[in-house]
Amino acid sequence: MSSSFSHHGLQASQYTILFFLSICLAFFNVEAKVHHLKWEIKYEFKSPDCFKKLAITINGLTPGPTVTATQGDTLVIDVTNSLLTENVAIHWHGIRQIGTPWSDGTEGVTQCPVQPGDTFTYRFVVDRAGTYMYHAHYGMQRSAGLNGLIRVLVPEGTVEPFEYDDERHLLLNDWWHKSTYEQAAGLSSPTFEWVGEPQGHIMTIVEADGHYVEPVVVKNLNIYSGETYSVIVKADQDNSSNYWVALNVVSRKPNTATGTAILNYYPNHPLKSPPTVAPVGALWNDTAYRVNQSKSIVSHHSYIEAPPRTTDRTIILLNTQNKINGHMKWAINNVSFTLPTTPYLIAMKNKLHHVFSQKPAPETYDYENYDIHTVLSNPNTSSSNSIYKLGFSSTVDIILQNANTLSPNNSETHPWHLHGHDFWVLGFGKNKFDPKVDPKNYNLVNPIQRNTVPLHPYGWTALRFSANNPGVWAFHCHIEAHFFMGMGVVFEAGVEKVGKLPKSIRGCGESK
Amino acid sequence: MSSSFSHHGLQASQYTILFFLSICLAFFNVEAKVHHLKWEIKYEFKSPDCFKKLAITINGLTPGPTVTATQGDTLVIDVTNSLLTENVAIHWHGIRQIGTPWSDGTEGVTQCPVQPGDTFTYRFVVDRAGTYMYHAHYGMQRSAGLNGLIRVLVPEGTVEPFEYDDERHLLLNDWWHKSTYEQAAGLSSPTFEWVGEPQGHIMTIVEADGHYVEPVVVKNLNIYSGETYSVIVKADQDNSSNYWVALNVVSRKPNTATGTAILNYYPNHPLKSPPTVAPVGALWNDTAYRVNQSKSIVSHHSYIEAPPRTTDRTIILLNTQNKINGHMKWAINNVSFTLPTTPYLIAMKNKLHHVFSQKPAPETYDYENYDIHTVLSNPNTSSSNSIYKLGFSSTVDIILQNANTLSPNNSETHPWHLHGHDFWVLGFGKNKFDPKVDPKNYNLVNPIQRNTVPLHPYGWTALRFSANNPGVWAFHCHIEAHFFMGMGVVFEAGVEKVGKLPKSIRGCGESK
Repeated sequence: MSSSFSHHGLQASQYTILFFLSICLAFFNVEAKVHHLKWEIKYEFKSPDCFKKLAITINGLTPGPTVTATQGDTLVIDVTNSLLTENVAIHWHGIRQIGTPWSDGTEGVTQCPVQPGDTFTYRFVVDRAGTYMYHAHYGMQRSAGLNGLIRVLVPEGTVEPFEYDDERHLLLNDWWHKSTYEQAAGLSSPTFEWVGEPQGHIMTIVEADGHYVEPVVVKNLNIYSGETYSVIVKADQDNSSNYWVALNVVSRKPNTATGTAILNYYPNHPLKSPPTVAPVGALWNDTAYRVNQSKSIVSHHSYIEAPPRTTDRTIILLNTQNKINGHMKWAINNVSFTLPTTPYLIAMKNKLHHVFSQKPAPETYDYENYDIHTVLSNPNTSSSNSIYKLGFSSTVDIILQNANTLSPNNSETHPWHLHGHDFWVLGFGKNKFDPKVDPKNYNLVNPIQRNTVPLHPYGWTALRFSANNPGVWAFHCHIEAHFFMGMGVVFEAGVEKVGKLPKSIRGCGESK
Repeated sequence: MSSSFSHHGLQASQYTILFFLSICLAFFNVEAKVHHLKWEIKYEFKSPDCFKKLAITINGLTPGPTVTATQGDTLVIDVTNSLLTENVAIHWHGIRQIGTPWSDGTEGVTQCPVQPGDTFTYRFVVDRAGTYMYHAHYGMQRSAGLNGLIRVLVPEGTVEPFEYDDERHLLLNDWWHKSTYEQAAGLSSPTFEWVGEPQGHIMTIVEADGHYVEPVVVKNLNIYSGETYSVIVKADQDNSSNYWVALNVVSRKPNTATGTAILNYYPNHPLKSPPTVAPVGALWNDTAYRVNQSKSIVSHHSYIEAPPRTTDRTIILLNTQNKINGHMKWAINNVSFTLPTTPYLIAMKNKLHHVFSQKPAPETYDYENYDIHTVLSNPNTSSSNSIYKLGFSSTVDIILQNANTLSPNNSETHPWHLHGHDFWVLGFGKNKFDPKVDPKNYNLVNPIQRNTVPLHPYGWTALRFSANNPGVWAFHCHIEAHFFMGMGVVFEAGVEKVGKLPKSIRGCGESK
């Protein structure tokens, strides 16, 4: 496994750079545009790290083309599947798909997969500026290279709460030498930390998942799978040198070399080697340091959208590693998630109640008796495709509770991603969440809104969201192998309010 | 690339062995059985030649389980696709599917592919005893390991035109260390010869593709992709030794070692090494020797079903290697074949005329001016999914005409396979087929009936069949990579007589 930057050789002169696009929430009366893109998905041999392997490409590229649009615009993307025998589906990560839940691109939840030879049209509005991404949401095709960036610009004339001279975009993704089929047959994937060791440079975090952040200055930025950030770097150092940008794995002990890129000061040659060795960043197992950074990400003071003061429902989700018939799985409240062959959205709109379990998914676990610090004595579990039905527009709290894996003294980091909504991040805690005590310490003043949040080792993370987007939405660990192994749930709310489903999402299971 | 036997260590004592099942055409009034099989298709790591790679398996096996039934029985096979993102379709090679054209398993022709998580039920009658096979008919999944044998036994009490004491079954298949995706991205596959060098043993060919052969004694048997044979071997040699069975590539210069198995005489240890080196067989480029063997395969004198004396239509198919946009292709009469996303059978029954080209596929080529011995000066061609509509129950002659490839002084061997029918093999010739002269030399007395026949380098092969099976049927080179690269055609006959199509074959293209 190795890591790759989408841009090698970052260039800077004596001015301020915005890494990742950053955004604002102001609205202007400008005419929205329709961007019509045509993408062909196919296999091509690629050698990003000098090892030749087949990658899933978009118009010949991996990462795929960066999509740029302005807030309020409509994206119309014709995706032609030119894979040989393999289907595909593309998720627009961070786009809430308000009114178009069938365009979320989540195979098994919102659509049938797109078959070889078919063209599927995704059509949706990018209703909020920010830095987002897109990637396959089917099997483990994201790891095979099907991913890219979405930049949603602020409307012209909008004043942002920071200034910069230029911008660069980095997409961090895992890259294995084995095929995704081989991965699916046994491997799982570590999370990553992008360690921007500054050697004099610092980074200011200004945006996360499309929301302004109260500026935080950091030397290292921990990025978990599924997260997007904008950071400002001031190029104010000695311009006779270039500088290292370095990337390291966290949470699992790294077994790959530090990934590096060069921050290039003009007029130095872009490949002029920096005078020092590449920095190594924080220790991979320094959990407290990472939790503190998670806690430091709060809403910019001028852009606070306060959460509801109370919740209508609290769902506690215990994250455990389990086994089914000897196969390693992940489970939520002792249920390892599987997708039905008929997508939920189609099944629920058409009242095909028999295609997935009608038993409600479990609301909590036995938190009074469960010891999150020990290995399960009986790791066996079972799988289900049961879901959570939420009251439309109700307020829902989700508590993610971590636990020991099947290895003694081991608990992992899980970045959870919610489709169709942002949630407020109310708090992080150590050990076992106590529903009587911990809610009293929630941040209800200036919590950040996000679509992806880490659950730290042996800890808990508390989230709140309004179930106000009619549809059926996945919520899952964004480590592709973990979701594949059952680490996810599905929420339904207001499905009866969803408009007529397009025929194009049909063609699998009972929707032929 | 290496070769593998489905059984290593053949065992024999002093009696006569039938290699491959052999059969007869007599009919008895015995009650037909229904065999209900449940198959799960998935990826598993396999190391048949000590190189670990992912294979597509059936119930954990590659080759898949051998299917055994008696003539007149019904096979009901529930195929569950447990591949991650990949569809599947299984063809029952040599089974004519009379009355069940939707069970032929040919993706794009007779059905939509079976999607991950779905179960598709194939149901058909095995109406004629013989040795057949099954394999994937989608992309290049056959090469990935999805293949196996079908034995259709003669009804109890039937007297066969030969005797034997025991039987063994060998399935020969190519085995690459690269994945089928990597193959699809560039490789093509050679044909194989199974060289049963006897060292005293001889083989008697008694059956081919489910038809009795007038016995032919051979030292080496040339088997082309898609063919099945029964041969009798008399174990009459010195029983203190074991003996080599050897396999070599023909038609293309081999770059793999000779494949070997041991013919084991009891009570020798099965792995006791034979006292000699493994035999090497005939030269890979000894075309005349192979053409003569092809010509020697004629119908057993007691089982002759004579062909119609005249034909209603003659279609001449020129086989050429071409290019489209720089990509290597194969073409028939200058058309490189592609499959539509909506299967022909569904499209034609439902009169969806717009889903494939309605222009008739070309009936012949410019044989008066075309020089089959030179490289094409302009190799560029185009692709089409046009087909041949045949009069129902009409008699059709097909002339396969070979030519030079894009390499000077090179012409390859192409084994052509017809779905849904057997054809009579009327003749083989060198150089260019002359429609005025060559039909006068057709064998109309005792031609063998087959479903697969080789087209030899720089030669022609003449076939005749009755288009009496209502449906839509593929006819193509059985080398998987060649069909993938466009080397095929499709015949329709009597589609209006086909019964109601099962809903299960739908779900792709315009059949959602």
